Amino acid sequence: MSDLSHDEPYNSDPIAELIENYNELNSSVIEELTEEPSPLEFMRYVAKNTPFVVRRAAKDWKAAKEWNANFLKDFLKDETVNVAVTPHGNADAPTPHPTPESPLVFAQPHEEDQPFPIFINYLTSQSLLDPAKPIGEVRYAQTQNDNLRNEYLSLFSHVPPSIPFARIALDRDPDAINLWIGNQHSTTAMHKDNYENIYVQIRGQKHFILLPPICHPCVNEQPLPSAVYSRPQQPSSQTTTTTKEEEKPDLLRLTVSDKKKVPFPTWDPDRPFENETEYSCLACPVRVTLHQGDMLYLPALWYHKVSQSVDTDGVCVAVNYWYDMDFTGPLYPLSTFVRSVYKRDAQDTGDSFEQDAAEEDHA
Amino acid sequence: MSDLSHDEPYNSDPIAELIENYNELNSSVIEELTEEPSPLEFMRYVAKNTPFVVRRAAKDWKAAKEWNANFLKDFLKDETVNVAVTPHGNADAPTPHPTPESPLVFAQPHEEDQPFPIFINYLTSQSLLDPAKPIGEVRYAQTQNDNLRNEYLSLFSHVPPSIPFARIALDRDPDAINLWIGNQHSTTAMHKDNYENIYVQIRGQKHFILLPPICHPCVNEQPLPSAVYSRPQQPSSQTTTTTKEEEKPDLLRLTVSDKKKVPFPTWDPDRPFENETEYSCLACPVRVTLHQGDMLYLPALWYHKVSQSVDTDGVCVAVNYWYDMDFTGPLYPLSTFVRSVYKRDAQDTGDSFEQDAAEEDHA
Repeated sequence: MSDLSHDEPYNSDPIAELIENYNELNSSVIEELTEEPSPLEFMRYVAKNTPFVVRRAAKDWKAAKEWNANFLKDFLKDETVNVAVTPHGNADAPTPHPTPESPLVFAQPHEEDQPFPIFINYLTSQSLLDPAKPIGEVRYAQTQNDNLRNEYLSLFSHVPPSIPFARIALDRDPDAINLWIGNQHSTTAMHKDNYENIYVQIRGQKHFILLPPICHPCVNEQPLPSAVYSRPQQPSSQTTTTTKEEEKPDLLRLTVSDKKKVPFPTWDPDRPFENETEYSCLACPVRVTLHQGDMLYLPALWYHKVSQSVDTDGVCVAVNYWYDMDFTGPLYPLSTFVRSVYKRDAQDTGDSFEQDAAEEDHA
Repeated sequence: MSDLSHDEPYNSDPIAELIENYNELNSSVIEELTEEPSPLEFMRYVAKNTPFVVRRAAKDWKAAKEWNANFLKDFLKDETVNVAVTPHGNADAPTPHPTPESPLVFAQPHEEDQPFPIFINYLTSQSLLDPAKPIGEVRYAQTQNDNLRNEYLSLFSHVPPSIPFARIALDRDPDAINLWIGNQHSTTAMHKDNYENIYVQIRGQKHFILLPPICHPCVNEQPLPSAVYSRPQQPSSQTTTTTKEEEKPDLLRLTVSDKKKVPFPTWDPDRPFENETEYSCLACPVRVTLHQGDMLYLPALWYHKVSQSVDTDGVCVAVNYWYDMDFTGPLYPLSTFVRSVYKRDAQDTGDSFEQDAAEEDHA
C-alpha cells in the first residue's frame, strides 16, 4: 500500500501542530459572564475543558461583604493556624539551588503554627512597607487540605457549602474547600491539579496565567529534587521566633531531601526566555485578574500561575472549591499521551534540557 | 538538568500506553438507560465523549408504531428515491480492487433514482430469498444529506423534529436528519463523522461496533484511491433496468477515478487479523445491537461499523440526527495529534503498510 506521505505533507512535528491547531480553535481571551451559569451551561464549559470568569458572582456572600484584615483578626483572635514560610514567597516552587543533578529544586515551605493575629499583623505590616525596604520572610496561609472545613471551620458558614451549578452539574460535593490568606509577596508557581476548580476572590486581587493541558510541551516539566525550608535551631522558643515581625529570610535554610523527585513545570510565562522549550513560544496564555467577588472556573488539568495584590487592608483572601474530575473519557489519557510523546521526542533528539540547565547555571 | 529517564522508565511506545490507559479508565460495555437522559445528564456523556443506549426510547414515535414495508410502500407509492447500488452491500467501503498504488479502493455506490415501490419490493424479496441462492445486487437508501427533511419530507412528521435532550444540551437544531432503508445485505464500513449522532432504530436491528477516537492507530487508515460503481451502458432505458428484480451484481463496473485519495480505515474488528496494525489487538470494541425503538448516542469522532438485520417484513429502517460537534476544547486537536504521531511513527519505523499491502495482494 502506498506511503501515506505521497498524499499528505509529512508533518515532522505533531506537537507544534497540536498547539497551533488548539490555538486556532480556541480563544486566549477568557469568557466573561455577568451571572452564574446554569448547571447545563456549566457542563458545556466542562465538556470543552474551557475556563470562564463570572464577575461579581460572590458579591453577596457574607465572606465578600465582611471579611477583611480586622474582621478576621478579631474573629480568629484565639486561633492558631498553619503558615507556610519562605524567603521569597516561593512555596512549592522551582527555586535555584544547584545540586549535582539540577540547578533548580522544588522548594517546599517551612510550615509552622502561628497565632492568627500575629500572622495577619505580619501580612498587613509587610504589605504596607516602603517598597525600598527589605521585606523579610514571606508568610502565606495556603494549606490545601480542605482547611475551610477544618482549621478555619468557624468561617465556613460565611461561604456557600458548595457552588450549586457545579454541584448539580458534576453530581458531587466538593472534595476540598480551601481558604488562602496572603499578600502580594507570595506567588503560586505554574502547576496543574486533577480537579475541577471554582476559585472565588474575597479580598484583593489574584492574577492568573492559564495554559490548557495540551501546553505540557511548553512548560518544561523537569524532575526536580525535593527541598524544604526550615528555621535553624535557635535558643529562643518557636513562639518567640514567630512573634518577631521582621524575620530575616536568609535565616531560612533550604535542605534537599533524598525523596523521589517531583516532576514540575519550570517555564514561567512571565519570563518567557528562561527555561523555555522549543514549544514555549507557541503558548497563548490566558490572563485574567479576579477582583473582589469574582469567580473563576479553572478546568481540570489546566496549568495555572497565580500572583496576588492586596486590598487597602493589606491582605489578599480567596476561597476555592475542588471537585473531583471525571477520569473517564479521552482527556486524561490524551493528556498523558502528549506528555509521553514530548518526553520521547526530547530523548530522541538529545533534548534541549542540558542547554537550558547550562544557561540557568550562568544566570 | 537531568535526563528525565533517570527518574521514570522510558516509555518507548506512547501510543500503546494511550490505548491501554484509555481501556483501563473506560468500559467497553455500553451504558444502558431505560429512559431518555435530561439535557444535563446527556451533557455529561458528551463531556466524556462516551456512548450510551436508551432502550425503547422511541417506542411511541409514530414511525416506530406504523412504519413497515407495506406502510412505506403505500405511503411513498408515487415517490422516486435515490438508491445506492453495489454488488456486495459495500457502499462507501474499502474494497479489493488492486491498483498500482493500493490493493484496496474506496468504493462508492452507483446512485440511481428508483420508484419507491420497486426499491422496497426489491429489498423485501431479496431479504426473504433462500440463502443458498445468489442474491443479486444490493440496494440501500442511505443518502446522508438530511434526506428526511427533503426527499422523504412526507414522512418527517412521524418522528420528532429534533431530540429534545440533545437540542437543549447542545443548544442547536440538528444539522441533518437522515433516513436509512435497507436490508441485511448492506454494511456500513468502519468510519467516523464530525457529528454528535443520535441514532434511532425503527424496524429490524442494527449491530454497531464502536471504537473511541483514540483508537485511530488501530483502524489502519490508508489513503485509498476513489472508485465508483456504474452500470454499463445498455440498450434498455434506466427505468426498465431498475425494474428488474434480480440484477446481476457483476454487471456493476468499478472504475477508479483520478480524484484525490480518501483516507479511510481498512481494519475491520470482525476480521481482526486482516489489515491490522500493531495496535489493533489493543482495541476493545464496544458492541451494541439496536432493536426497534432503541436510541444510541454515538459521540462525535467515534469509529463505527454498522451491519443490520431485517424485521419479518424484510426491511431494516433507522433514522439518525446529526448535531454539529463543538470543535473548541481539546478533543479535536488531540484526535488529530494521535493521527499525526501514529503517521510519523509509522514512517520513522519503515511502517507496516507495505507488508499489509503484500498480504492483501495474496489474499
